[in-house]
Amino acid sequence: MLHSPSDNVDFLEATFRKIFPQDLESRDRAVDHLKQLTMPHWALGDLMDLAVDLAGITRSLKPPVKRKKVVVMVGDHGVTVEGVSKYPSEVTAQMVYNFVAGGAGINALARQAGAEVVVADMGCATDLSELAANGAVISKKIGPGTQNIAHGAAMTRTHAVMAVEAGIEIANQLAPDVDVLGTGDMGIGNTTPSTAIVAVLTGKSVDELTGRGTGLDDEQFEHKKKVLQRILQINKPDPKDGLDVLAKIGGFEIGGIAGLIIGAAAHRKPVVVDGFISTAGAMIACSLEPFVRDFIICAHRSMEPGHRAMQEKIGCRPLLDLNMRLGEGTGAALAMNLLEAAAAILTEVATFADAGVTGPPDS
Amino acid sequence: MLHSPSDNVDFLEATFRKIFPQDLESRDRAVDHLKQLTMPHWALGDLMDLAVDLAGITRSLKPPVKRKKVVVMVGDHGVTVEGVSKYPSEVTAQMVYNFVAGGAGINALARQAGAEVVVADMGCATDLSELAANGAVISKKIGPGTQNIAHGAAMTRTHAVMAVEAGIEIANQLAPDVDVLGTGDMGIGNTTPSTAIVAVLTGKSVDELTGRGTGLDDEQFEHKKKVLQRILQINKPDPKDGLDVLAKIGGFEIGGIAGLIIGAAAHRKPVVVDGFISTAGAMIACSLEPFVRDFIICAHRSMEPGHRAMQEKIGCRPLLDLNMRLGEGTGAALAMNLLEAAAAILTEVATFADAGVTGPPDS
Repeated sequence: MLHSPSDNVDFLEATFRKIFPQDLESRDRAVDHLKQLTMPHWALGDLMDLAVDLAGITRSLKPPVKRKKVVVMVGDHGVTVEGVSKYPSEVTAQMVYNFVAGGAGINALARQAGAEVVVADMGCATDLSELAANGAVISKKIGPGTQNIAHGAAMTRTHAVMAVEAGIEIANQLAPDVDVLGTGDMGIGNTTPSTAIVAVLTGKSVDELTGRGTGLDDEQFEHKKKVLQRILQINKPDPKDGLDVLAKIGGFEIGGIAGLIIGAAAHRKPVVVDGFISTAGAMIACSLEPFVRDFIICAHRSMEPGHRAMQEKIGCRPLLDLNMRLGEGTGAALAMNLLEAAAAILTEVATFADAGVTGPPDS
Repeated sequence: MLHSPSDNVDFLEATFRKIFPQDLESRDRAVDHLKQLTMPHWALGDLMDLAVDLAGITRSLKPPVKRKKVVVMVGDHGVTVEGVSKYPSEVTAQMVYNFVAGGAGINALARQAGAEVVVADMGCATDLSELAANGAVISKKIGPGTQNIAHGAAMTRTHAVMAVEAGIEIANQLAPDVDVLGTGDMGIGNTTPSTAIVAVLTGKSVDELTGRGTGLDDEQFEHKKKVLQRILQINKPDPKDGLDVLAKIGGFEIGGIAGLIIGAAAHRKPVVVDGFISTAGAMIACSLEPFVRDFIICAHRSMEPGHRAMQEKIGCRPLLDLNMRLGEGTGAALAMNLLEAAAAILTEVATFADAGVTGPPDS
């Protein structure tokens, strides 16, 4: 059952119009408050910066962070026939069943963080209607995997719009019951389109950006780089047009991630962006609507070499750096603990005056 | 009320004899299991290394991590009269009252991590017997603050032994009801003895190691370095004798931290070591009994420049790097979430066989 096209052709545009930058007054008030806490100036460093971001995002000095959901966007990739991944495409659907059964890495880490896992079928090659029927998976399937981007475009521009819209719809659907959204991905082969996206949007070379994905050997790695060169030569995406980049070299789940991030921004919810694939989605989102940037929290620095270039491009320092490269939203789930910690600093720590502690001489 | 000397002169020695390295068989079994999980090889990186450490420490593939306590060791420092800190000594006791009231940074972060805060008076200059009487603070007071190390030894060798013993006693007392211990510190002026300790134990220069502590300006910073030079010239601690280093240039809370770490190792409990002051304690602990190293988990990289040198010396990579410099155990509390996450990976993630997911071609 494929996703039906949006009735409202201006849906994307209408969503963009709801997105404003962080609220500067709330940021200033958070900074003033944090300076009065019983500790040396800014002694909790990045956690305090994060607390200020949460205030600016939510327009509140008590940013809510308890209700957390990680959305795992699923899609298959025609380019896998080029041998760019160590695992066969079937693993995408097998992992969806694993997510639903609660047995994957993201399930364990989301439980630890008190977050719920939501699985969305954006374009799995396998029929998942059984799982969609019983509500285990949100079905937004645009198509049964992308076309092979080594030979032409991944999808039509219409399908690219639909993928982003579907992500926004998921954000809209979840927004009333969620404080913090996290992005995740599952799609065998998806480091290849993600690397192509970062190459186009940063102008950096494939050699500089390509990694070994799920664990390629030297020969497979050289092959992957050649395939990536071909993808860029054949498709020539327009770096100034995010939808063109998504349509030509993207993936359905990457479009869904971009949409989820845009939707989170429209609802003024912090969105914790996971690793390499999620950040490719974030780059698409930022290229469509730059104000989205203010709502993104970069969870971690992945082992994929292109991830640093992505995070530098969108201007976001990652919170964690633990040599992870799993995806699924695992980094986002882990980082949600840090959002809770940042909010706790803002709301639970006493001021010098309240606690009767002598402040610094210049305070 | 001062701490009474230990009845058993061989208490330290008897504790050292209980400390063995990590269990290699448990580590190997954990590695074998983690390789079978439904994810690319070692795709959760440092979290999987941490899971292997937890297995080796606890001799279990289901390492318990739920019951967590952060012990904040408190001590004052005679060297504050030299103007090495921006805050007056009285703040040490004021912060103890803040800890007890639940209003400090460590209280907020420990609550987030589901950890309990335990405050131990190792040598606060203020009388805290009221708090000790109602059980809000564990009293192990060796003395009302150290002597001024810019003029001579911090404490006698006997008092150094007593401080380490007191830390071990606290570990012994807490061990039956705790899975994971964390270290914390409170003591105005204690970056100075900690910097002196790392200088002696690494042979690096004061210029290379000294930081601005709670926020010194340029002039105060230069002054602190001169005081540190004098401390080292006057005391000449023997780098091969951890108790001599502690006695000459340490602090009561630093000795307590060393003891807590030694005690944790004797009970085969993971001990999450916080920032600069806690790692000074860890260096003393490792110099007294090198096997202790196997039970230490370095929580984070502090902003103090000497912290990197400490962690390199004991051979431990920190989990977090968030530009924090508060102490109190705040980094340890934050990192406890990662210990839970690592244990969850080991115990909650399905294997390829269990989940019916196709493994990598070479598995």
